[in-house]
Amino acid sequence: MTADEPSGGPSVEASSPASGEVSGGVADERRRRPGGRTERVRKQVLEAVQAELAERGYDALSMDAVAARAGVHRATVYRRWRDLGGLLADVFDAASADDWQPADTGSLQGDLAALNHESQSSLTAQLPLVPALIAASFRSEEAARGVQHLWEDRYARCEAIVARAVERGEIPAGTDARALLLAATAPIYHHLVLLRAPADPDLPEQAARTAVLAARAGAFLRPDPS
Amino acid sequence: MTADEPSGGPSVEASSPASGEVSGGVADERRRRPGGRTERVRKQVLEAVQAELAERGYDALSMDAVAARAGVHRATVYRRWRDLGGLLADVFDAASADDWQPADTGSLQGDLAALNHESQSSLTAQLPLVPALIAASFRSEEAARGVQHLWEDRYARCEAIVARAVERGEIPAGTDARALLLAATAPIYHHLVLLRAPADPDLPEQAARTAVLAARAGAFLRPDPS
Repeated sequence: MTADEPSGGPSVEASSPASGEVSGGVADERRRRPGGRTERVRKQVLEAVQAELAERGYDALSMDAVAARAGVHRATVYRRWRDLGGLLADVFDAASADDWQPADTGSLQGDLAALNHESQSSLTAQLPLVPALIAASFRSEEAARGVQHLWEDRYARCEAIVARAVERGEIPAGTDARALLLAATAPIYHHLVLLRAPADPDLPEQAARTAVLAARAGAFLRPDPS
Repeated sequence: MTADEPSGGPSVEASSPASGEVSGGVADERRRRPGGRTERVRKQVLEAVQAELAERGYDALSMDAVAARAGVHRATVYRRWRDLGGLLADVFDAASADDWQPADTGSLQGDLAALNHESQSSLTAQLPLVPALIAASFRSEEAARGVQHLWEDRYARCEAIVARAVERGEIPAGTDARALLLAATAPIYHHLVLLRAPADPDLPEQAARTAVLAARAGAFLRPDPS
């Protein structure tokens, strides 16, 4: 994916405009010179992290390899990001720092299918990076928090899809947005990442339709209506 | 999990009784002395592979480390499994070589919930192993085929759940069993492995209920009824 393709998936796009919360002194330094050399260095370094992860995996990731690939002085990388945890945290922060919003197609089915198509495309494009990010989230507390924060942010933005559907009367008020979104999106990731099956062009629509039908039948109502 | 706990999840249980297809000369050798020293060595080695993966990750896995941990001569490990691909393939083969069947609770909701509870338990128990297996499946063609084969085998066994529900008239004939099973089970894995969220005790039932309601509404009928 490119910087112009936002994604509902676990995209880790280092070239997004910097904004939002970035930990420690990194944000301060960047705010001093927005869009300038500091920001360019950050972009180079975070892209290098992703390239190293995709090519060599999490266990081979090192500050020195990242600095070398980015063409940035080692001292700069150590000063600014301190350690691998700091680098990974910033990769996830950068991925959240965009103005992505889910598409508004006018129907719940359309919105969820658009989200799934987008996730499937970006996931397919970034597939070698995915196992490295999963490995990182299991090996580093900082990376795990970064992953959780990134997903939390993406799913929170997607709650608008459910709110619109309730407003239109497509699904009952009291529908648990997060449960509906999990049901609608999980099959895409399960299929590609866990099952290691080739992308199924029908799955984005099918998973969306499943979630819509279940939502209409009250599957995501709280308290449990059964 | 122990050898007595079968699982619908991606369990990699090296202590299952040997059976089924095992690649190359391994099967022949084992069949010569079933249950004997050969089988004990296999069990020790495959358990060592899983322990190494869980503790050190895929990228640190080596034949020598496995041999050392298993307390088996390096030459034996190289002769029998040839390389890491051979070792991983045998881990997945061993995981399929059991007589696990999904529970028959008398209802689709009950069967799917039982499957999800079982998956969630074994996944939680084996969580450190999961990212290593995912990484392996992305780095080794042999491991990827092993993963695909293992899931294919598990989902094929679970199709009995859907067949029983159709027979009971709970869901329409013509329901796509695999699509229903994917919808019912994917949220468990997505939640624990991708989102890195703590296990949700309500999710197994909730994901099962969602799939049942969607199935009754015709979500998994082919051709598309919409």
